[in-house]
Amino acid sequence: MRIAELSSRSGTSIPSIKYYLREGLLPAGTATSRNQAEYGEEHVQRLRLIRALLDVGGLSIAAAREVLAAADTAELPDLAKLGAAQYALDGVARRDRTDPAWIAARDEVVAAVRERGWSCEESSPYLDRAADAVHAMHQLGQDDLLSAMPTYFETAERLATVEVDTVIRRGEASRMVEGVVTGTILGEALLAAIRRLAHQHVSITRLTA
Amino acid sequence: MRIAELSSRSGTSIPSIKYYLREGLLPAGTATSRNQAEYGEEHVQRLRLIRALLDVGGLSIAAAREVLAAADTAELPDLAKLGAAQYALDGVARRDRTDPAWIAARDEVVAAVRERGWSCEESSPYLDRAADAVHAMHQLGQDDLLSAMPTYFETAERLATVEVDTVIRRGEASRMVEGVVTGTILGEALLAAIRRLAHQHVSITRLTA
Repeated sequence: MRIAELSSRSGTSIPSIKYYLREGLLPAGTATSRNQAEYGEEHVQRLRLIRALLDVGGLSIAAAREVLAAADTAELPDLAKLGAAQYALDGVARRDRTDPAWIAARDEVVAAVRERGWSCEESSPYLDRAADAVHAMHQLGQDDLLSAMPTYFETAERLATVEVDTVIRRGEASRMVEGVVTGTILGEALLAAIRRLAHQHVSITRLTA
Repeated sequence: MRIAELSSRSGTSIPSIKYYLREGLLPAGTATSRNQAEYGEEHVQRLRLIRALLDVGGLSIAAAREVLAAADTAELPDLAKLGAAQYALDGVARRDRTDPAWIAARDEVVAAVRERGWSCEESSPYLDRAADAVHAMHQLGQDDLLSAMPTYFETAERLATVEVDTVIRRGEASRMVEGVVTGTILGEALLAAIRRLAHQHVSITRLTA
C-alpha cells in the first residue's frame, strides 16, 4: 500500500509517519520509485505499537526507539534477551548517586529484595529507580508511607507471576518479546489507572464508614 | 534566607528556582528590597516536593502545577478534596473517545469495576486511562495479557487499602493531602520499579526451572 493508505489504515497522519521513519521507529517501505514506497501489514502493526508506546505508555521518542530496537533484535526467549528488552525500557539516571542519603535508600531497597528472596543483579537500574522514590519519600518526611513496602513487593510478585506465565505460554519467541514490551509498558499504565480507581473506592469506603 | 542559601539547602540551581517561581510552582518569598527576597523552611520543603514530582514522578511542569495547586487548596480530608487532589494528578485525554473499539474497551473496564463492587464515578478519568491501555492491547493482538486483569484489580485493592489506611492514620488534614500527593505519584514510581524487579525474578525462576 502507499503512504496515504497506511495513514488511513493506522489512523496516523502522513507527517507523523514520515517523522517515525526519520527517527528510525518505523522501518522504511520498499522503494518503488524515487519518491514512493510500498508498505505492508507489518507497517500498520508497527504504527499501532508506536502509538501505544507513545500515547498510552507515555514514552519519549528516544525511549520508544530503544524499546523497539530491543524487540527487533531479540530472537530467542532466553534470559539475556528478555532482560535486555526490559532494561531498554528504562530512561536515564537523574539523581545524584553519590549522596549518602540516596545510597542508604538504595540499601533499603536491596535489603527488601534480598529478604523477599528475589534474584536480582546488583547493578539493576530498577534498584536505582526504586531508590529514587524511597529517597524522595524520606526527604519529604513521608516515611510512614514506606510501611506499605512489603505489600508492594508481595503484590508485585503475585502480578508478575501471572504476567510472566501468560507470556511464556505463548511459546513463540517473537510473540514472547512482543508480550514483554507491551505487557511491561501498557500493563504499567493499566495498573496505575486501576490503582487510582482502588484509592478512590477505598477512600470512599473508609471515610463514609 | 537568601536565594543562594535556598539553592544550596535544596540542591536546586538558582535558575531552576527562578523558573519554578515564574511558573507558579514555588510561592514567592518576602521581598526585602527591589531585587531581593527572603525565603523560609517551607520553600526548602516545597522545592524538595517539586523535584520529587518532576524527577521521580516524571510529571510535566503543568501537571506539577495542578497537583501543587490542589494540595494547597485542600484543607479538609473530606471526600471531595481528596478526590480533587487525585483527579488533578492526571493529564489530558489523548484518544479518540468516539471510536467504537475504544468504547468497548471502556465498557470492559467498567464491567470489571462493577464486578469487583468498587464505588466509582461513571465519568472518572481513570476509567478512560485504563480503557486506553485495554484498547491498545486489543489493537495489538495482545488479548491474552488481559487475563491478568482480575489480578490487577485484586492486587490494586490490597495495595490501596494499606496506602489509604496509612494516610488516614495521620489525622491532620494537611498531612493527609500531602500523603495523597506523594503516595500517589512517588508510590506509582516505586511500584513500577518493584514490578519490573519482580518480572526479572519470576522470569529467571521460570526459565531456569
